[in-house]
Amino acid sequence: MTPIPNPRILYASIPTGYPIPGKNTKYDDSEQIDLENVPLKGGYLTRTVLISPEPWLRERLRDPIEVSCASPMRLGLPMVGSGLVKVIRSEDPKIKVGDFLAGIIRASPYQSVDIDAWGPSWLTKVQKLPGKDWTAVPGVLGSPGTTAWMGLKEYGDLKKGETIYVSTGAGALGSMVCQLAQAAGLKVIASTGSDEKVKYLIEVIGVDYAFNYKTTKVDSALSKWGPIDVYWDNVGGETLDAAIAHCNVHARILACGYISEYNGEEKYGNLAWIFKKRIRMYGILMSDLVPKWGGPFFEEVYKLLAEGKLKTQEHIVHGLENADKAWVELLQGKHLGKTVVVVSNPEA
Amino acid sequence: MTPIPNPRILYASIPTGYPIPGKNTKYDDSEQIDLENVPLKGGYLTRTVLISPEPWLRERLRDPIEVSCASPMRLGLPMVGSGLVKVIRSEDPKIKVGDFLAGIIRASPYQSVDIDAWGPSWLTKVQKLPGKDWTAVPGVLGSPGTTAWMGLKEYGDLKKGETIYVSTGAGALGSMVCQLAQAAGLKVIASTGSDEKVKYLIEVIGVDYAFNYKTTKVDSALSKWGPIDVYWDNVGGETLDAAIAHCNVHARILACGYISEYNGEEKYGNLAWIFKKRIRMYGILMSDLVPKWGGPFFEEVYKLLAEGKLKTQEHIVHGLENADKAWVELLQGKHLGKTVVVVSNPEA
Repeated sequence: MTPIPNPRILYASIPTGYPIPGKNTKYDDSEQIDLENVPLKGGYLTRTVLISPEPWLRERLRDPIEVSCASPMRLGLPMVGSGLVKVIRSEDPKIKVGDFLAGIIRASPYQSVDIDAWGPSWLTKVQKLPGKDWTAVPGVLGSPGTTAWMGLKEYGDLKKGETIYVSTGAGALGSMVCQLAQAAGLKVIASTGSDEKVKYLIEVIGVDYAFNYKTTKVDSALSKWGPIDVYWDNVGGETLDAAIAHCNVHARILACGYISEYNGEEKYGNLAWIFKKRIRMYGILMSDLVPKWGGPFFEEVYKLLAEGKLKTQEHIVHGLENADKAWVELLQGKHLGKTVVVVSNPEA
Repeated sequence: MTPIPNPRILYASIPTGYPIPGKNTKYDDSEQIDLENVPLKGGYLTRTVLISPEPWLRERLRDPIEVSCASPMRLGLPMVGSGLVKVIRSEDPKIKVGDFLAGIIRASPYQSVDIDAWGPSWLTKVQKLPGKDWTAVPGVLGSPGTTAWMGLKEYGDLKKGETIYVSTGAGALGSMVCQLAQAAGLKVIASTGSDEKVKYLIEVIGVDYAFNYKTTKVDSALSKWGPIDVYWDNVGGETLDAAIAHCNVHARILACGYISEYNGEEKYGNLAWIFKKRIRMYGILMSDLVPKWGGPFFEEVYKLLAEGKLKTQEHIVHGLENADKAWVELLQGKHLGKTVVVVSNPEA
């Protein structure tokens, strides 16, 4: 069969703000493919059905020297991203012609293991969703739905009656988070960027409270409808900072993106790294820990001391009347070692 | 027996910066106690041996309207805090005369259930530590040692060969964290506020690297000796922010104080709330979660959709050549619903 064009969207140059199609990405139709004869090498050939553009892809279009959670894309190669493909030839016994696969694909009409190393390893066989067109698959089964569902299961620790706040609540991922949290019995507060999306959140998704962050401050919305037990953060920066202040004790924050900083509009300290490096952060207080760890603690510490494995150092002050002064000097970091005020002789 | 004076340190007024003894706290000797006849009500009477001033107490000296993790102290009442007491009379069969108890006590030479409601419930029987004076008890068995040991056990997830950074490493709590982490096989980087303390950290505690944060920036120290897998944060503010940037993927940050903000010198966003409300914060990424949650996800989502419990919404764009434009508009939040680019007909 005669080769036919297999156009691609190429990564052409590193964007500084929002990417500019035609400059940072380029549609290129110089490549050709012979659908009948392209070697499959035990794999399969697919026809692209859907491409699912997703925010995280922006992170890949950066100077490779910058560290992040997604590997940097290489200039001149085709863009890759989420999508749905249909199998049109196969040498893999587990994959049949006509199967639909979702996962990471490259931006072109056809792909095979021979032309795209990314393909097969990231693809999962999927079925049409009940009552939905195929176009519903990237949202529900692609990274938005997957991340929402798994993130809540692994880290959300959702309890009926709690309150969750979801930023970018009307987005593909946010609207999944809102609905899954609601199904788990939580009160849902969501923010989004237009009044039309606020209406969608209230009337279609059915969240309890929604607001437009461009006209209502996060702080005032959460003052009214909070406090919150869970914050699903897709935004980072100032929104994350504001949400922290409205958390209940033992709240969970799921940092899942920082779209406010992807395109260089804003830099807010280093909070974005909490997401990029999947850092877990725990506020800790002794009284929370004593019920579980009180027993083993005494045992181990006596042992460590007896074995000479633990050094201690005291800054000793004498007399009750000096206790407050000793404490202020401690706050000022004036002395070395644990400040201890001797009030009376222990041996007496 | 004749009553004898039982002086106290009273909480006199709310401090604005560092507390001023004589102004914010006052030594008062107007109270008397009859050691032989004070009613014990089934409890016991103790003589104070040691008082252990601790930084967290500062948090209690605030306007009661402000929320925090420690309850606010009431003006005019005696200061309370950590300490060691010896039992001199007892009606409680579990507590013998001569026993030593550590915990929260009030700042006065004697206390009983009758004169101090705090006493008994917060006190734990302790023994002298092997090879140590009684003055070592507040550091090792009091809140510094307890918090260090339990915090690392519960949240540290320490692995041999990892690197930990400890701020206020020469402090009572910090030096415990350094040593326990080292015993667990971690490389330890510690910061402190004087060259004398740096020397102590290196020569006595034996940490791998120590620096004086007043003369060396956290950022440059961690650039040299990091990256880090665990950050034990006693400081908050700018130090926490800097440490976040030097974390490895899946690092743990244990937020255990924010001494940089206790005395109002500095306010750094809302990071302090992570400690005050024991917030757990997780950076999350889909690919970390798929191995554990991939199976149950598909099952539950198909079920939710079949039952009509999950709403989906798509913003549909046609043609591969429009995929990059669709993606940029997604980054700009221009549309409602999951953006999907239809490249070919799924039914074909």
